Amino acid sequence: MSGAVEPRTLREDAERIIHRAIGRMQPDEAVRLALAGREFPGRVLAIAAGKAAWQMAEAAAGCMGDRIEAGVVITKEGHAKGGIPKFRIYEGGHPLPNEGSVRGTQAAMELVENLTEKDTVLFLLSGGGSSLFEKPRISLEELQDITQQLLFCRADIVEINIIRKRLSQVKGGRFGKLCEPAHVLSIILSDVLGDSLDMIASGPACVDVSTREDAERIVRKYGLKLGKEAKACLREETVKELPYVTSLVTGSVKELCKAVCEECEALGYMPVLLTDALCCEAREAGSFLASILRTHRNTQRDLAFLAGGETVVKVCGSGKGGRNQELALAAAAGIDGLEGTAVFSVGSDGTDGPTDAAGGYVDGRTAEQLRGQGIDIDWVLAENDAYHALERTGGLIVTGPTGTNVNDVAVGLLKGRGQELHCSRPLAPKEKK
Amino acid sequence: MSGAVEPRTLREDAERIIHRAIGRMQPDEAVRLALAGREFPGRVLAIAAGKAAWQMAEAAAGCMGDRIEAGVVITKEGHAKGGIPKFRIYEGGHPLPNEGSVRGTQAAMELVENLTEKDTVLFLLSGGGSSLFEKPRISLEELQDITQQLLFCRADIVEINIIRKRLSQVKGGRFGKLCEPAHVLSIILSDVLGDSLDMIASGPACVDVSTREDAERIVRKYGLKLGKEAKACLREETVKELPYVTSLVTGSVKELCKAVCEECEALGYMPVLLTDALCCEAREAGSFLASILRTHRNTQRDLAFLAGGETVVKVCGSGKGGRNQELALAAAAGIDGLEGTAVFSVGSDGTDGPTDAAGGYVDGRTAEQLRGQGIDIDWVLAENDAYHALERTGGLIVTGPTGTNVNDVAVGLLKGRGQELHCSRPLAPKEKK
Repeated sequence: MSGAVEPRTLREDAERIIHRAIGRMQPDEAVRLALAGREFPGRVLAIAAGKAAWQMAEAAAGCMGDRIEAGVVITKEGHAKGGIPKFRIYEGGHPLPNEGSVRGTQAAMELVENLTEKDTVLFLLSGGGSSLFEKPRISLEELQDITQQLLFCRADIVEINIIRKRLSQVKGGRFGKLCEPAHVLSIILSDVLGDSLDMIASGPACVDVSTREDAERIVRKYGLKLGKEAKACLREETVKELPYVTSLVTGSVKELCKAVCEECEALGYMPVLLTDALCCEAREAGSFLASILRTHRNTQRDLAFLAGGETVVKVCGSGKGGRNQELALAAAAGIDGLEGTAVFSVGSDGTDGPTDAAGGYVDGRTAEQLRGQGIDIDWVLAENDAYHALERTGGLIVTGPTGTNVNDVAVGLLKGRGQELHCSRPLAPKEKK
Repeated sequence: MSGAVEPRTLREDAERIIHRAIGRMQPDEAVRLALAGREFPGRVLAIAAGKAAWQMAEAAAGCMGDRIEAGVVITKEGHAKGGIPKFRIYEGGHPLPNEGSVRGTQAAMELVENLTEKDTVLFLLSGGGSSLFEKPRISLEELQDITQQLLFCRADIVEINIIRKRLSQVKGGRFGKLCEPAHVLSIILSDVLGDSLDMIASGPACVDVSTREDAERIVRKYGLKLGKEAKACLREETVKELPYVTSLVTGSVKELCKAVCEECEALGYMPVLLTDALCCEAREAGSFLASILRTHRNTQRDLAFLAGGETVVKVCGSGKGGRNQELALAAAAGIDGLEGTAVFSVGSDGTDGPTDAAGGYVDGRTAEQLRGQGIDIDWVLAENDAYHALERTGGLIVTGPTGTNVNDVAVGLLKGRGQELHCSRPLAPKEKK
């Protein structure tokens, strides 16, 4: 009792970092922080669109009480958790827009009619907004057909959005334009790597940097078949000026990385942000991260290497797992036998692949533990069965649904050798809270 | 003329860094540095084994003149470039030992007989030594059969070496023991990641950390079929003490990374060593490196991120390329459009895959250049055809055979934004030479 402090395990550090950092990424928390201290002279209307729309709207309603005159929530089916005073709640389609998307978006468009320059539109946007917040300028069927053509030709997401923006009444800055001359405060919870604002839900309240010429080039490149109306839409330019819009990206993988950096620091690690734009194969990212830890294993200080983003998995086997679990398991092979070394990777939404785990944790002993049970890491990865392997080493990270979605983060922890060798007393946690 | 300094291009920087760093990795240079200022009281005998044995022996002969009383070179067929005074030159088998390996090794063993504690054996070891420097305790045929069994069961290189060391008269520290009581100065040009001395050529002059029990475990694990003599060999312990051996790892991927760091620094970049133990898939390493550059693209200072090691390529297509070329080309997609950003990767031996290039160079414009020529990076990678794509963008790095072999290094260069934005004059090179 009297001052005897048990040293924290790496696993405990990992759990703390994950829980605290993800806690700070909650949509409600993000909305509260963004609204704190702001003044709204006139009427306030709120539009929330995306998978976290309900939480964001509820948080805004909670902070602002009666100041919100009316609001609309458009979220994915099953994502609304009940009523919110003064809000109408719609459920739309995801990943393809449906009639629900259109009805909700129509209601939002009506709500922002006839505003004055004193008024404010709170626009709360989150992942999934592209298909949930949509009112096409052509028929839904034709929009879906064109989208399918683009997907079939393997057009990339930037190209798809350049076309989609032009076929929409709200995308490509058009919703922002509809709100004029009212002020728009856009609070964005991003799940798009790199935070390109016009890419998040195809930027309803964001000026569009693409041009008519870009759109024409894409039509030619893929030989798109378009109806007369769609062709006319593509000839019109998108919005290039939105002087009354203020955008705040409050949750994003960048923010997640920042929160993880701070939580690592609070536990005495020196954080090293490698990237917040990771997009390579999960297992190879794990191997790369492990190589970095191997190289720096004789560090004096405790280090935490971070890589945020969204890796990919090529599913070849029939096992159970997710990209974060594969990343961690692959890293286990690379840090095999290294004392004071751990790698963990988590999806901030609490769901990694089709599993009940958010990600995986491994350390320098994991590979040996698996060998002891006759489990070969290469074989497990070939079968995409990281879940069951991590289950055997107590390496599953389970958080349950977190209510947020700002991509993934992988962290490599390294305890400083200097301290382990020269200091026989356990390190006291540096954090006071 | 009068003080007008053309700013260097990123490509020029890359070429300088590569040529200077690899120049410093030359076996002869490494040997010269290792021998500089050393005193040898008694007789000096020299044994050089490995693919760079001839160069190392020639360099030693050049530095030490008549001080070397006699020497033996055992190198790969075609790797000897002529005679060296006082040296007998043998050509052995690689990757499997042959009669030439055994004859050369026998000559080396005879040379170190009857030495005194005043004498010195210069032992010059390089990659390929495992099969070139070998005198088995069993028949060559049985040794090859056991090696094949191990390869067939997919035993890893550590396991294979634990068995091989015990079946050899020179591996596992036994050659070091034979030289006693003479001093052994072992100069090692390493192509093994992580510089585990007992792994380089199975450590002829290095104490062996593996045990008899480890060997027994491997025999049981794979159900190896062994003759009576081989079984007897495995019951004997390898060398655990070598008080008269000094080992210098003079060329290694770690040294290569150090040299690249210094050359980057000389050109004004702040070097950041990510790892010197990279071993993941080449294209994914390229993607990871590109993600790191994307994240840090707003840096004030010029940065150089380094990753040394040896990546792998899964060959699925029928194109032409190598791991360094694939790494660079994959990175091109990730840095697409980023000004002042480049990635290059080279094999220090000057040969990347079955091509005449040492590696590849890409920058923020490479992807656009390829698009302009109708070339899709994903398709090129699927075909393993990086060589032809890089040829089209002037991105092949060609050095010719370099005479050294210390793995690969990949570098991401990033020009600081601060300087580009605030300084209209071209930056003068910081290097004076």
